[in-house]
Amino acid sequence: MKQSGSTWSDRFESSLNPAIAQFNASILFDIELLPYDIQGSIAHAQMLAKTGIISETEAETLVQGLQQILAEYQQGEFQPGVEEEDVHFAVEHRLTEIVGDVGKKLHTARSRNDQVGTDIRLYLREKISHIRNHLRDYQQALLELAENNLETLIPGYTHLQRAQPISLAHHLLAYWEMAQRDWERLGDVAKRTNISPLGCGALAGTTFPIDRNYTAQELGFERIYRNSLDGVSDRDFAIEFLNAASLIMVHLSRFSEEIILWASQEFNFVTLKDSCATGSSIMPQKKNPDIPELIRGKTGRVCGSLQGMLMLMKGLPLAYNKDLQEDKEGLFDAVKTTGACLEAMTILLTEGLEFRKQRLSEAVTEDFSNATDVADYLVTKGVPFREAYNLVGKVVRTCLEKSKLLKDLTLEEWQQIHPAFEQDIYHAITPKQVVSARNSEGGTGFEQVKIAIENAKLLMNQ
Amino acid sequence: MKQSGSTWSDRFESSLNPAIAQFNASILFDIELLPYDIQGSIAHAQMLAKTGIISETEAETLVQGLQQILAEYQQGEFQPGVEEEDVHFAVEHRLTEIVGDVGKKLHTARSRNDQVGTDIRLYLREKISHIRNHLRDYQQALLELAENNLETLIPGYTHLQRAQPISLAHHLLAYWEMAQRDWERLGDVAKRTNISPLGCGALAGTTFPIDRNYTAQELGFERIYRNSLDGVSDRDFAIEFLNAASLIMVHLSRFSEEIILWASQEFNFVTLKDSCATGSSIMPQKKNPDIPELIRGKTGRVCGSLQGMLMLMKGLPLAYNKDLQEDKEGLFDAVKTTGACLEAMTILLTEGLEFRKQRLSEAVTEDFSNATDVADYLVTKGVPFREAYNLVGKVVRTCLEKSKLLKDLTLEEWQQIHPAFEQDIYHAITPKQVVSARNSEGGTGFEQVKIAIENAKLLMNQ
Amino acid sequence: MKQSGSTWSDRFESSLNPAIAQFNASILFDIELLPYDIQGSIAHAQMLAKTGIISETEAETLVQGLQQILAEYQQGEFQPGVEEEDVHFAVEHRLTEIVGDVGKKLHTARSRNDQVGTDIRLYLREKISHIRNHLRDYQQALLELAENNLETLIPGYTHLQRAQPISLAHHLLAYWEMAQRDWERLGDVAKRTNISPLGCGALAGTTFPIDRNYTAQELGFERIYRNSLDGVSDRDFAIEFLNAASLIMVHLSRFSEEIILWASQEFNFVTLKDSCATGSSIMPQKKNPDIPELIRGKTGRVCGSLQGMLMLMKGLPLAYNKDLQEDKEGLFDAVKTTGACLEAMTILLTEGLEFRKQRLSEAVTEDFSNATDVADYLVTKGVPFREAYNLVGKVVRTCLEKSKLLKDLTLEEWQQIHPAFEQDIYHAITPKQVVSARNSEGGTGFEQVKIAIENAKLLMNQ
Amino acid sequence: MKQSGSTWSDRFESSLNPAIAQFNASILFDIELLPYDIQGSIAHAQMLAKTGIISETEAETLVQGLQQILAEYQQGEFQPGVEEEDVHFAVEHRLTEIVGDVGKKLHTARSRNDQVGTDIRLYLREKISHIRNHLRDYQQALLELAENNLETLIPGYTHLQRAQPISLAHHLLAYWEMAQRDWERLGDVAKRTNISPLGCGALAGTTFPIDRNYTAQELGFERIYRNSLDGVSDRDFAIEFLNAASLIMVHLSRFSEEIILWASQEFNFVTLKDSCATGSSIMPQKKNPDIPELIRGKTGRVCGSLQGMLMLMKGLPLAYNKDLQEDKEGLFDAVKTTGACLEAMTILLTEGLEFRKQRLSEAVTEDFSNATDVADYLVTKGVPFREAYNLVGKVVRTCLEKSKLLKDLTLEEWQQIHPAFEQDIYHAITPKQVVSARNSEGGTGFEQVKIAIENAKLLMNQ
Repeated sequence: MKQSGSTWSDRFESSLNPAIAQFNASILFDIELLPYDIQGSIAHAQMLAKTGIISETEAETLVQGLQQILAEYQQGEFQPGVEEEDVHFAVEHRLTEIVGDVGKKLHTARSRNDQVGTDIRLYLREKISHIRNHLRDYQQALLELAENNLETLIPGYTHLQRAQPISLAHHLLAYWEMAQRDWERLGDVAKRTNISPLGCGALAGTTFPIDRNYTAQELGFERIYRNSLDGVSDRDFAIEFLNAASLIMVHLSRFSEEIILWASQEFNFVTLKDSCATGSSIMPQKKNPDIPELIRGKTGRVCGSLQGMLMLMKGLPLAYNKDLQEDKEGLFDAVKTTGACLEAMTILLTEGLEFRKQRLSEAVTEDFSNATDVADYLVTKGVPFREAYNLVGKVVRTCLEKSKLLKDLTLEEWQQIHPAFEQDIYHAITPKQVVSARNSEGGTGFEQVKIAIENAKLLMNQ
Repeated sequence: MKQSGSTWSDRFESSLNPAIAQFNASILFDIELLPYDIQGSIAHAQMLAKTGIISETEAETLVQGLQQILAEYQQGEFQPGVEEEDVHFAVEHRLTEIVGDVGKKLHTARSRNDQVGTDIRLYLREKISHIRNHLRDYQQALLELAENNLETLIPGYTHLQRAQPISLAHHLLAYWEMAQRDWERLGDVAKRTNISPLGCGALAGTTFPIDRNYTAQELGFERIYRNSLDGVSDRDFAIEFLNAASLIMVHLSRFSEEIILWASQEFNFVTLKDSCATGSSIMPQKKNPDIPELIRGKTGRVCGSLQGMLMLMKGLPLAYNKDLQEDKEGLFDAVKTTGACLEAMTILLTEGLEFRKQRLSEAVTEDFSNATDVADYLVTKGVPFREAYNLVGKVVRTCLEKSKLLKDLTLEEWQQIHPAFEQDIYHAITPKQVVSARNSEGGTGFEQVKIAIENAKLLMNQ
Repeated sequence: MKQSGSTWSDRFESSLNPAIAQFNASILFDIELLPYDIQGSIAHAQMLAKTGIISETEAETLVQGLQQILAEYQQGEFQPGVEEEDVHFAVEHRLTEIVGDVGKKLHTARSRNDQVGTDIRLYLREKISHIRNHLRDYQQALLELAENNLETLIPGYTHLQRAQPISLAHHLLAYWEMAQRDWERLGDVAKRTNISPLGCGALAGTTFPIDRNYTAQELGFERIYRNSLDGVSDRDFAIEFLNAASLIMVHLSRFSEEIILWASQEFNFVTLKDSCATGSSIMPQKKNPDIPELIRGKTGRVCGSLQGMLMLMKGLPLAYNKDLQEDKEGLFDAVKTTGACLEAMTILLTEGLEFRKQRLSEAVTEDFSNATDVADYLVTKGVPFREAYNLVGKVVRTCLEKSKLLKDLTLEEWQQIHPAFEQDIYHAITPKQVVSARNSEGGTGFEQVKIAIENAKLLMNQ
Repeated sequence: MKQSGSTWSDRFESSLNPAIAQFNASILFDIELLPYDIQGSIAHAQMLAKTGIISETEAETLVQGLQQILAEYQQGEFQPGVEEEDVHFAVEHRLTEIVGDVGKKLHTARSRNDQVGTDIRLYLREKISHIRNHLRDYQQALLELAENNLETLIPGYTHLQRAQPISLAHHLLAYWEMAQRDWERLGDVAKRTNISPLGCGALAGTTFPIDRNYTAQELGFERIYRNSLDGVSDRDFAIEFLNAASLIMVHLSRFSEEIILWASQEFNFVTLKDSCATGSSIMPQKKNPDIPELIRGKTGRVCGSLQGMLMLMKGLPLAYNKDLQEDKEGLFDAVKTTGACLEAMTILLTEGLEFRKQRLSEAVTEDFSNATDVADYLVTKGVPFREAYNLVGKVVRTCLEKSKLLKDLTLEEWQQIHPAFEQDIYHAITPKQVVSARNSEGGTGFEQVKIAIENAKLLMNQ
């Protein structure tokens, strides 16, 4: 990496130690920003012409040269090596090769600091949009599964203990809601990402009569940074994205945990299809839920990147510091990981899971998850809740000792417990009635779940 | 902690191991939620009456009892010990002591799961509002300092190397911008916090004909959770808050770093006032910038709580799990830490810093931070930017060798470098002109900074 | 908090802003270090006399005064408020009240920087020892449970899919091994904690003829810090402890997850005793595994403190910075959390779990977890492993279609699969034989597990 | 990725969804383990022969085939694509291509679970050794710089305020000490890494009469895992390494921060050589300390990987889970980052820094960092320390008001302050004497530093 006469000014006499050049270079990963760098440079060149800083002809030459580089890159012909420090210099050098001396005018009135800030925001804005699309696909898959399982009952858990039976659709819609928050949250992140730092210069703005609003508009930014120091040193949007991505991963990790449980021999609530499961290298009977396991495992790396980025920014004085070069790899990895996990989960939901309805139907009848309903029954007969609750607790204990379920008690036995019990207690504690009765807004009652499905469709079409 | 007959149902025969009772209890920290718990219970009791689940008289009795508990708490008379598992049971038990058996009706149609979810959202909603106020105070202090220092010049840095001189006001406004983003971001967090889970029950809703919108409205929530499972197990809002708080801390840590630098003997840009500095136990001459150091140090704990909470949620199956009890201490600590740091920084800005203007004024004349302007000068004379840049680099090197500054070059020397230089080069490179000339939007030019100050005032009044 | 004439030197004219005094003060949490502070000061005073810096009589007076303060503290009579900045000043001020002017000599030849470093190492050294004891108790509980369950079979899992049956003792001993590593790791941490910084002064040593080895020996340190700057600014030991504590928590979180699974209705491998479980506020039938859930949940906070501490240290210049005051709360919390979780888990193992042996015994016969043994059987008959594996995979698929287990195949069916099968295949695939046959070193074969138990006993007695 | 008949057993009817195959595959990154995988497989094959499980001839064939694959890999000819799930299958498939059916015997008596565990430990053991060598190089560079700067004085700081002057060698040796702890700590990590899981099988050991100690010895492991479940699911060593690497990075970040400060125009303590600095794309005068900035910035990613790995392991039930596939990328990255940063810092120390001795020499005379020595002077005259300290504080204040330094006071002025002052006070407060006098063990006194340098040499030769 020659310095004198090329990258740095002639203030430098001798060239960089090659090992250090290698250490400093970001080209091996920031090449991913090339399309955005070209996009930004084209807008910059056009603005330079519009404001008379360069001529229209010069601008056209620059734009054509930049477009050629993009084409070369897309065809795999432009592969700058580590002798180019970064994507920005790589492009500028290639540009000057193509268009000659006019290439040296491109960097007028800007700095790599505002340039890379522009690139990374353009990149992230697009990726956020892609991830939101993945979220919509995932929500759609959840919704379809929910519609097909409105009346499929499944045990509802707290503390992983059976609590109350619920509609499987209701359970799936809980994940839909998380995804909906993720979708909205990414919208807020996009809002704070889509701001143009172009024209902030190295840190202080520029002496040239540039038009920042022009480039911002050309590039589709909503507005420009109001303060140049802030513009070149702000990475809030990346941290905020990493947090939103971490939350997506946490949500997927929760669903993954459940699918892994459901696919176990003990739960046995779902069968994994061969197309979405793998085997063991040694145990011939195995069929493993690799997809949800991997997703659960990948949660750590995204949250780790969030933490790494927070630590990166801690204590940095204004304005740009080289530390900021480290903003990219963790971000790129989180973008890819989150997208891939959403896609994999969507495929799993769409073609990989078969709910074992017979097993689920038996599961909800074989336990005491209808006990709350007995207490509620008594409350409607005038017994204060806490008394009713204690009474039912005692019944459950007796039943456990006798290896009986609540439905097996005779009416006499019920009435010995409390005279208020009548024949209708049997109906009240059937799983279907237990679910159906939770008809409070947002509850698992079938009516409510139907409404929820309709609402979800509406919200997805907004 | 007796179990039978008190907290748990009579399903339990024997009582909890006392060491385990101690381990499980959250009362020592969740007592902080008491005012919100009472607030939520009052709304719940009124709703129970409104929907006919209990009588109006019963509701009144409950409300009065609850208000009495709040008063006792505020007067320091209600101090439940660890024999009460948590704040919810502590209140219910005390209520039954005060109002008798009707107290046992309060928990009808709700669960601790939706109750604690309600409490913590009410708590956080209020705290977010407080922190936003602290942000406004901090922004106000920045703004006042900026207004008083519009024409105070200070070296602007990149890589902690002097880059270009800037207006001190412009520098301070960069922090104002970060705070403004923090303020907006907390608004988005508030939006996703201010949703009512009350009525979600244990996980599945309830069989009672409750009115969730009534309690939501009474408690000032914007809407209700659409899915009961999600309502009791969602802690996104807490994580999102912790991320917003982490960003506030990261911003403060950057400013702290700068103040620590400025207060060093080497920079010597500010003098710390005695009221905002401390000494050493052994070195009598020391005056230490403890405030910014502590703030910088406290960044870690808030980011650590964020990470802890993400880890807490990872892989939890639906719906409520006891793990969620651990959502509180980290959150409470982050609320307190962030608020305290904003307050301390505001005090420091208001009364603790004295900018050494003489020193600053000398600082901006003693280096090569006007070199970009020489290059820009040449560009306006038609030299392509990259050539001008290289030329100026060479000049700087020569000057360094001769221990000269740019302003010390004679016109002949300038013209030997490039014939385009004329007398006006001397004006172009005075610090004041260098700053003034950066009049691009958002730049450090005085006109721009004045506009920025006016804009900031407008935005703070929105 | 008066400054002039008290805490700081008379270099300060005016006193600290009270809000800032509150912000800076650490007394509310570092009071926990008081016993160690006294211990360190006694050794320091005795060294001052031994080296002739103060007289023997003065030293005796100081020691008596210090002992009195310790007694007052232990009796709850010494409760310094926030007007004392920290525990060190609180003690020095009280000492001067008790013994008069000689108290002003105690701080000769030391600084708070080496003093607090000494305190925190004395504290942590003791706490590490306590936690190692807790680990031993936990290992003992595991070992006893293992001894009682050598021949209890339980499904062994990979990917939470049944893989191969194993001895329950073998499963429990896996946790014993993790704890053994934790115990050893803490030993290494102790090694790097037990080094004396006393005498490093503020940062550079002292001009007084102190004897650092004397105080080190008196305080039981293994050696002294070799470099004074390092001595006052090193917090590696705290970070290393936090990592060791995080690993303990991660191990406990894994065991917790399993116990939660085992206690579910689906697994139904253990019954939780009433003394170690809690109920629901609303669902009378519930018995929840709160202990393992809380332990799993607490993992996040300890790992969060580790991360917070790493972030705290990042980028701090030498030597002491006020940021380091933030080293305590996270550390104290991790000490308490880790100790409490180990204790709770030990209680749970000792009195809270009842393995349902009948259920376990059935579980290991009802699946295909003996399939590997069929493949191994064929290999011993000369079939290459990968072929045998594929063959058995096919058998499993056929069995699944016919709802048969391997043991239900007739000898003819076996021989149709491969002629090498003989009558002894039935014996080879009984769960007990499957376990017994894994007699490779460290395997689950009963002989191996017996050896492992004996080894474990030996290692615990070392 | 065809499943039937290839990777998985014939238990699978249909093949994996290609998108899922892509998602599951680890070959793109675990190919890095190939040399270790081959090494492990050779030892395994030889053991199989030694124990009679396969024949000697078969083993030889396998070994030759494996060696051929290694050669192909090293020559860049073996580049398995994503259709191979992972490096283990890629090798087994290629092996079977090369040697025919005997290749299908290689996997006898092992599983990918113990295989990958073996690979990653072999990998990490080697990398730890490399990093320890890098640490030694770095320590050597520090030591040489220290030897050349024993009598170079530099301001010593606490709170980034000048505290007491110190020997530059002493300052550099503080970093030597941190590196020494890092070196020792990695030794402890190596101890817990160098344990063989080979032979643990899938989770429970194997039915074949293997000899685990043989393979352990062949592969240079110190011992074998005592428990097979633990052996396949333990990743403590990776976490412990990541923590040790995080500490190395934190140490480097502290030094980096200092170098960045020293290279600023304000400190001006060092000049960066052109070979270790870079310029700006726009400001021709800039020379930026990119190396230390990048190192400081890279701290976050290593700590983030630590956190990611802790989160990965949290709550995983025994034994192997697919989540563990995610143990690699963060680990590989931390290995590379830590090594590269140590190398870069070593180059910077060796050829990139020029200490400006004239400036340093002036710096230590221009402030009040000799104030402690005045207090110490009075103590030796019998004034209690705290009184002396207050007195000197007052003197400093007066001097500041009069813009005088301590050395500028007349003897009369000294004696007005306290009659004990005599002529020798002037000597006592010269920077050289101030440093020299701190001759307590581990202090900055020149004698002590000389001893420290000799000690350091001894320790490095151990």
